[in-house]
Amino acid sequence: MNDIKLLFEPRSIAVVGASKDPKKIGHTFIKNILASGYAGKLYPINPAGGDVLGLQAYPDINAIDGAVDMVCTTIPARFVYDSVKACADRGVKYNVIITSGFSEIGDIATERKIADYAASRGMRVVGPNVFGVYSAEARMDATFGPGGIMPGSVAIVTQSGALGLAMIGKSKVENIGLSAIVSIGNKCDIDEADLLEYLTDQERTRVILMYIEGIKDGDRFIEAVKKATKKKPVVVIKSGRSERGAVAAASHTGSLAGSDEIIDAILRQNGVIRADTIQQAFDWCKYLGNSPAPTGDQAVIITNGGGIGVMATDACEKYDIELYDDGKKLKEMFSPVTPSFGSTKNPIDITGGAAGAEYNSALSVALDAKEIGASIALYCETSTFLAADLEKVLEQNHNSYELKKKPLLFAIVGGEDIENAIVKLGRKNVPVFGDVDEAVACLGKLYWYHRYLRYHSELYEDAAVPVAAITEICTNAIKQDRYFLLAHEAQKIMDLVGIPVPKSYIARNLDEAITCAEKCGYPVVMKVVSRDIIHKSDAGGVALDLEDRNEVIDAYQAIMQSCRAYKHDAKIEGVEIAEMLKKEVETIIGARRDQTFGPVIMFGLGGIYVEVMKDVAFRALPLSRREILNMIKETRSYPLLLGVRGEEQKDIDAVIAVIIKLGALISKCPAISDIEINPLMVYEQNKGAKAVDVRILLAKDERSTT
Amino acid sequence: MNDIKLLFEPRSIAVVGASKDPKKIGHTFIKNILASGYAGKLYPINPAGGDVLGLQAYPDINAIDGAVDMVCTTIPARFVYDSVKACADRGVKYNVIITSGFSEIGDIATERKIADYAASRGMRVVGPNVFGVYSAEARMDATFGPGGIMPGSVAIVTQSGALGLAMIGKSKVENIGLSAIVSIGNKCDIDEADLLEYLTDQERTRVILMYIEGIKDGDRFIEAVKKATKKKPVVVIKSGRSERGAVAAASHTGSLAGSDEIIDAILRQNGVIRADTIQQAFDWCKYLGNSPAPTGDQAVIITNGGGIGVMATDACEKYDIELYDDGKKLKEMFSPVTPSFGSTKNPIDITGGAAGAEYNSALSVALDAKEIGASIALYCETSTFLAADLEKVLEQNHNSYELKKKPLLFAIVGGEDIENAIVKLGRKNVPVFGDVDEAVACLGKLYWYHRYLRYHSELYEDAAVPVAAITEICTNAIKQDRYFLLAHEAQKIMDLVGIPVPKSYIARNLDEAITCAEKCGYPVVMKVVSRDIIHKSDAGGVALDLEDRNEVIDAYQAIMQSCRAYKHDAKIEGVEIAEMLKKEVETIIGARRDQTFGPVIMFGLGGIYVEVMKDVAFRALPLSRREILNMIKETRSYPLLLGVRGEEQKDIDAVIAVIIKLGALISKCPAISDIEINPLMVYEQNKGAKAVDVRILLAKDERSTT
Repeated sequence: MNDIKLLFEPRSIAVVGASKDPKKIGHTFIKNILASGYAGKLYPINPAGGDVLGLQAYPDINAIDGAVDMVCTTIPARFVYDSVKACADRGVKYNVIITSGFSEIGDIATERKIADYAASRGMRVVGPNVFGVYSAEARMDATFGPGGIMPGSVAIVTQSGALGLAMIGKSKVENIGLSAIVSIGNKCDIDEADLLEYLTDQERTRVILMYIEGIKDGDRFIEAVKKATKKKPVVVIKSGRSERGAVAAASHTGSLAGSDEIIDAILRQNGVIRADTIQQAFDWCKYLGNSPAPTGDQAVIITNGGGIGVMATDACEKYDIELYDDGKKLKEMFSPVTPSFGSTKNPIDITGGAAGAEYNSALSVALDAKEIGASIALYCETSTFLAADLEKVLEQNHNSYELKKKPLLFAIVGGEDIENAIVKLGRKNVPVFGDVDEAVACLGKLYWYHRYLRYHSELYEDAAVPVAAITEICTNAIKQDRYFLLAHEAQKIMDLVGIPVPKSYIARNLDEAITCAEKCGYPVVMKVVSRDIIHKSDAGGVALDLEDRNEVIDAYQAIMQSCRAYKHDAKIEGVEIAEMLKKEVETIIGARRDQTFGPVIMFGLGGIYVEVMKDVAFRALPLSRREILNMIKETRSYPLLLGVRGEEQKDIDAVIAVIIKLGALISKCPAISDIEINPLMVYEQNKGAKAVDVRILLAKDERSTT
Repeated sequence: MNDIKLLFEPRSIAVVGASKDPKKIGHTFIKNILASGYAGKLYPINPAGGDVLGLQAYPDINAIDGAVDMVCTTIPARFVYDSVKACADRGVKYNVIITSGFSEIGDIATERKIADYAASRGMRVVGPNVFGVYSAEARMDATFGPGGIMPGSVAIVTQSGALGLAMIGKSKVENIGLSAIVSIGNKCDIDEADLLEYLTDQERTRVILMYIEGIKDGDRFIEAVKKATKKKPVVVIKSGRSERGAVAAASHTGSLAGSDEIIDAILRQNGVIRADTIQQAFDWCKYLGNSPAPTGDQAVIITNGGGIGVMATDACEKYDIELYDDGKKLKEMFSPVTPSFGSTKNPIDITGGAAGAEYNSALSVALDAKEIGASIALYCETSTFLAADLEKVLEQNHNSYELKKKPLLFAIVGGEDIENAIVKLGRKNVPVFGDVDEAVACLGKLYWYHRYLRYHSELYEDAAVPVAAITEICTNAIKQDRYFLLAHEAQKIMDLVGIPVPKSYIARNLDEAITCAEKCGYPVVMKVVSRDIIHKSDAGGVALDLEDRNEVIDAYQAIMQSCRAYKHDAKIEGVEIAEMLKKEVETIIGARRDQTFGPVIMFGLGGIYVEVMKDVAFRALPLSRREILNMIKETRSYPLLLGVRGEEQKDIDAVIAVIIKLGALISKCPAISDIEINPLMVYEQNKGAKAVDVRILLAKDERSTT
């Protein structure tokens, strides 16, 4: 496997299909590579020969003398396979296939053939159906984009070529410098995960922006993204929210989740910031790439107008930003810098009369206050504080906050002068927005990401799983051509991993019945065991709610008598003695191997809550204890576990323990594809939880039952 | 009461506090009024005399000869009352009090005094604490804003002065002409409702934008806004979403709702488009003010890039826009204008090679197709279709769509040229956006508003209420110093309005018991009636589930026997015979007189759904049948009424009937402040619903019990 670094820092590039004709993509490639200042070797390839933009064209790849790290293939689709073959044979490391017209229009076979041949010779492929690669590190614009990319610290990985090219343009407008931009198109070989690995370690890249439509190899992607978010923010636009049913609904668990719900949960769980729009993504990348971390959990709003302050307060709630609200301290801090008819409650209202001096004073107080972790300053245009002064004041304060490493954002609303100030300051990377919501959203994402960083390093929970014994049960079932387990098999597996199920024993005589009842603990249920008696109730073969030894004796005798009377020749093997289950809070826990993301866990409150309210939460494994609790808390019906209507709190720890064990089971036993406990009956604190009904499905893919 | 028209079209204006000093607000007023081209009479008032910007200043209001329709008061707070008094005595029609320092900083008394005096002399007051009034109709900028307001068709009513001034500036940047802008500040007299009445009928105003922090007189506001939205779109920014508890929680119903939930429901119900940010509000006002109505329910997306098409599809789902999806027809229509490697599925992908001609063809097809009600065109910057051509094509298509009155919006993404095109086209009111979400949101709001218009004129439901009889029950309770009704009183009221309650009769002997049981319908419950027997069950005085006449006879005799044995001297008055209720779907219906909005209705599924999941919906009365059904459908647990797990559908019509009757009851009986039916047991279709438990609270305000 080649070092992915060579894709971003190739020592030599050949462009297959390089052309004199400025309308051809092969021309644009040579032009952009030359214009970007690429220092390595560049070989135009064109069977017609001649020169392209002053460079001698080679007739084919074999005509080139030295090694070629990267090839950009720009020739028509029907010629691509042969060209790829030649490059692979020639020892090219990376082939970026620009050409479209493969799997995206249905020609999967040719694409597969290309990928397979390349793989067989150790050549990696980007695309097909891409616009190329830009890398600031190599000063290389190997794309057919508009050129003039500003080098910087944001790396973009995009599945859509058209959108990627438009983003190149937009990045310039937004004054966002790029460390790299790569389009991955049909992903016949290289995918997001490969690129993430390089970008995670590359110093120049401070933020990664990805546009994704579909994820193929989810667990590799998760692994890569998890590593990336530990080092730098990753902002993802994942489109196709409204597409449903990518994951076939093998079990109840699956049928509940449009795949977007799972993706959304998994992205969040792994520290990814998900944006809905390109503008959001750009705003957040720019801000998170430049801002220091908050110095504390609580922020302050400083404003010259009440209305805009209220709007910012609403937005802080929306984006989960805590506002500092110690009224006494706020008064101490801010009353020296606030007029008497203003307000020192957060938002601090320094009133419409405030100009530069007043903003400076108030922002300095907030900067110096240890209690305050970040500041948001708002400005409604007034005649007292004009745009020219405003610009200076904003820039100065931005600089002092930057120096002391505390976040500060501005939202300013007004006319032409204000709009111009936003543009000018934006070019200097001062975070100033024309809308309160946009500013607060940026700070919200910053807080969110740093909260994630604080917890990401927590240990994952694990549990022992006797894999051999479990696999044996599964293998036996498959031998009988069954891909689901029978109740007693599923119970056996629960026993093996230590998930409590209701106790139940078979007693062959009265003495044993008594012993079994004592083992279960009263009250118990007694049922006749006989192959000859199908309808046990009709035969008088069932007794409920037996509360002590005497009731067990009476019931045993009554059952024997009734059953014999019911069917005198019935062979009675004994009775089943089982715990009589109290009804409590019913939960549902599912675990499945998702086609895209590997093992995932679902939690919800049982019955109607799951079926009607779709009130469930998802996570990908492995999980820390905190994440498990977060998942449980995410459901709207969570208060039922805390106890409502004066009830006691339920045993949430027991639920967590079951989730840990179920997670370990699905992760370690590839023979199992789906497990659903429904209901898991949860009792009061310290009284545990019991898996009343367990359904286990087996994987049909033979590779996974080895 | 003066005609509100004179506030927007005064024949003469006096400015109290007019000044030579350009730094004073009283100077800015004269300057702005003169600059805006006001044609009426203008009187500066200043005791110092002299001239202000070439106009002779008058020492006081009485020194002016002619009538004065409007006064703008700009003097310090302590002088305001005397000045207002003089103006009121002088017969001034409107006094716009710019000065701040009244109720907003706690001085409620002076403000009240001002309002009362003005009212006593028939003078209406705007403010205090406002920036003034701009009216395009009168070419009058009577504000201390930046001047240079562009006349147009959007009217702005704002509670926040600072934000309003900033919006004046922003309206120019966004090329939005204003028909009026008024700040209403402390609203000591004139409020949103007064202004809405004028703006609703004023031809020039095509859209109304309101910034609201608090609503004082909710039912008047609703009345006014309801009339307004029938004629033109109303966009409201209501801030303070995160503020809770404005409505004291007298009953369960109230305690469930942060007031914002109620406000949100009521705004929606009355056709108001609620915006979260100023940018949204401006975008929507501009678009809805200029766009024709959709010509059909389904829209089409035309794009040159797949990725951006997917994002637009997501956004259409988010903003509730249906996409036309008859694949066969789409192919027929669009394949002549789409390359073979494009897509004729909606989104129509005319591919990255598309330039002007291709956009023109595709957009023409969509324009001419009767099946398509609106078009969204997307463009990712490419080298084949450059910004200069793009501008022309967009403008042309905009014009042809405008001519044929079909909505068309553009979202275009790219670099500097694209940004410039957005600005240029924006100035020509071509709806073109830099972000897919913004464009789709505009179309979504347009669809939403026109759907509202289609249904708003439906009849409100009403029901007969015997007010006198009900009021008598309430008055009797109040005489006993009770502000809640006893169970039998509440049941009596249910009977009076025709809401079914479980049947129940008192029988004094066996014959009566049998007759009563037949009246109830089997099965019935029988309970002893005796003041001497407190614990009826202990005494053997209760029999459940009596299924026929014989069981009633047996139970009657058993109860008499047991009770006599239990307490031989007990005086037994008879037995209560009641329906034995089947447990079915439990709902909760609340009706209350909201302090702000008057009568409101709440609906939810009973028990845990309400308590834990807060799964309830609100509406203000009166309601059409469709709105009632919408309210019911809004709850997440609605599927329970449709029947889950193979159950039959429940009697939703019966629920609607109860809501109609409860609505009529709370609307017509001012003695009642809160009613809660919990649960209303809902049976299968055609089997009705029963109010099992009813709690009624009475109004403590004596005015309402007359």
